[in-house]
Amino acid sequence: MQNYKLTIEYDGTEYLGFQIQAKGKTIQAELERALERLFCEKVRVISSGRTDRGVHAKGHVINFKVKTTLKNKNIQAALNTYLPRDIVVKKIEKVPDDFHAQYSVKDKTYEYTVVISPCRLPLRQRFAYCCNYSYDVSAMRKTLRCIIGRHDFRAFASRFPTDKDTVRTIKNARIVQVGEVIVFRLTADGFLYNMVRNIVGTLFLVGQGKITGAHFKTILLSKDRTQAAAPAPAEGLALVAVRY
Amino acid sequence: MQNYKLTIEYDGTEYLGFQIQAKGKTIQAELERALERLFCEKVRVISSGRTDRGVHAKGHVINFKVKTTLKNKNIQAALNTYLPRDIVVKKIEKVPDDFHAQYSVKDKTYEYTVVISPCRLPLRQRFAYCCNYSYDVSAMRKTLRCIIGRHDFRAFASRFPTDKDTVRTIKNARIVQVGEVIVFRLTADGFLYNMVRNIVGTLFLVGQGKITGAHFKTILLSKDRTQAAAPAPAEGLALVAVRY
Repeated sequence: MQNYKLTIEYDGTEYLGFQIQAKGKTIQAELERALERLFCEKVRVISSGRTDRGVHAKGHVINFKVKTTLKNKNIQAALNTYLPRDIVVKKIEKVPDDFHAQYSVKDKTYEYTVVISPCRLPLRQRFAYCCNYSYDVSAMRKTLRCIIGRHDFRAFASRFPTDKDTVRTIKNARIVQVGEVIVFRLTADGFLYNMVRNIVGTLFLVGQGKITGAHFKTILLSKDRTQAAAPAPAEGLALVAVRY
Repeated sequence: MQNYKLTIEYDGTEYLGFQIQAKGKTIQAELERALERLFCEKVRVISSGRTDRGVHAKGHVINFKVKTTLKNKNIQAALNTYLPRDIVVKKIEKVPDDFHAQYSVKDKTYEYTVVISPCRLPLRQRFAYCCNYSYDVSAMRKTLRCIIGRHDFRAFASRFPTDKDTVRTIKNARIVQVGEVIVFRLTADGFLYNMVRNIVGTLFLVGQGKITGAHFKTILLSKDRTQAAAPAPAEGLALVAVRY
């Protein structure tokens, strides 16, 4: 059996998220369908993680094991023919047998994009959260510093089992603003369910002056999900890279 | 009757183009449906021009006349509620009675976006032509200079009546490249049917070294549509601004 690592990009708008569900379109189901069609057998996909309904990816990583004599470029070409147009295999690599897309992760980077506009923006709204608030970016930037490092992020985890470890290390967190576009970029050794969207949603309150940066820190320390704000909308989020 | 000027943005992916057709979704049909719902009467929309199937707009301008006591911002809000999510009214202005969205045009600007990639790009392909060619941008840029000014563009007009005037003035034409993204930006007093896509499609041949810049000029001077290349794909094109 050869272990393969795939880097995939997808427009998550029409999907219920990465993971296979009993009903509805998911990225994993499309991938496994394409793999089964190519290799004429069930192939189980191991994912670097799950993305939520409507979330996009530029560099989602998965792996699978299969016995084949096909060349990499032919596997990639065949999968891209079988996959729907909004999912694509950008890269295929042979990896050692012990490579595991989830357990071998060193860190992941997510980007959350906001576009400030008085009206909806048909050319932007598919891949960004378009809203008509004015945010104090410098206040959000200052506040964001407090999440860098090793913390218990339970306050920012939606529906997370209470017995599971919620300590993660954020290696990098920054905000880049170019005109009306604000991009939040977070890198961590792992993310809890909805963690980026919950952090960004709560930062929005800081940016709107509804809570202080100190209050944001209190929420982080509280480890209480009910303290944090609602998650920022899914369309603004994209998994941009997974490092091993 | 008050004359209103609207600036609209739309994602043209799901539409047959601007102009109303016997069958199928068009931008004009959606606008007139929203106007009729708001004003409880048929309102005829006059457009700065037509866009083709799948073409987008950031700043398409239309006008219409109606008798109403509603405030501008309320008309805009109501139309944006009635319009589908992929069309939006960005701006509404009261204009003098003689303002005509088509006849009063000073110039229009179109942008054509190309993204060079070895595979399709789900996050870009909706609003750009993604392809795996390598283009000599400097050769295309040099060639583009020859279309600036007043010329008969019949060679770049698809399905244009032979008795109609095909002389137009291109005021500005440039190519901007940032990494793998190439943007063609053309401003003219008017464009013939498919003119931007035909010019860009023929420039692609220059960029690929299939024809010379001199040959491109020969095509322009030939006034013969069969000499030029196939139009560049619709998804890369957007009407960005109309000036009056």
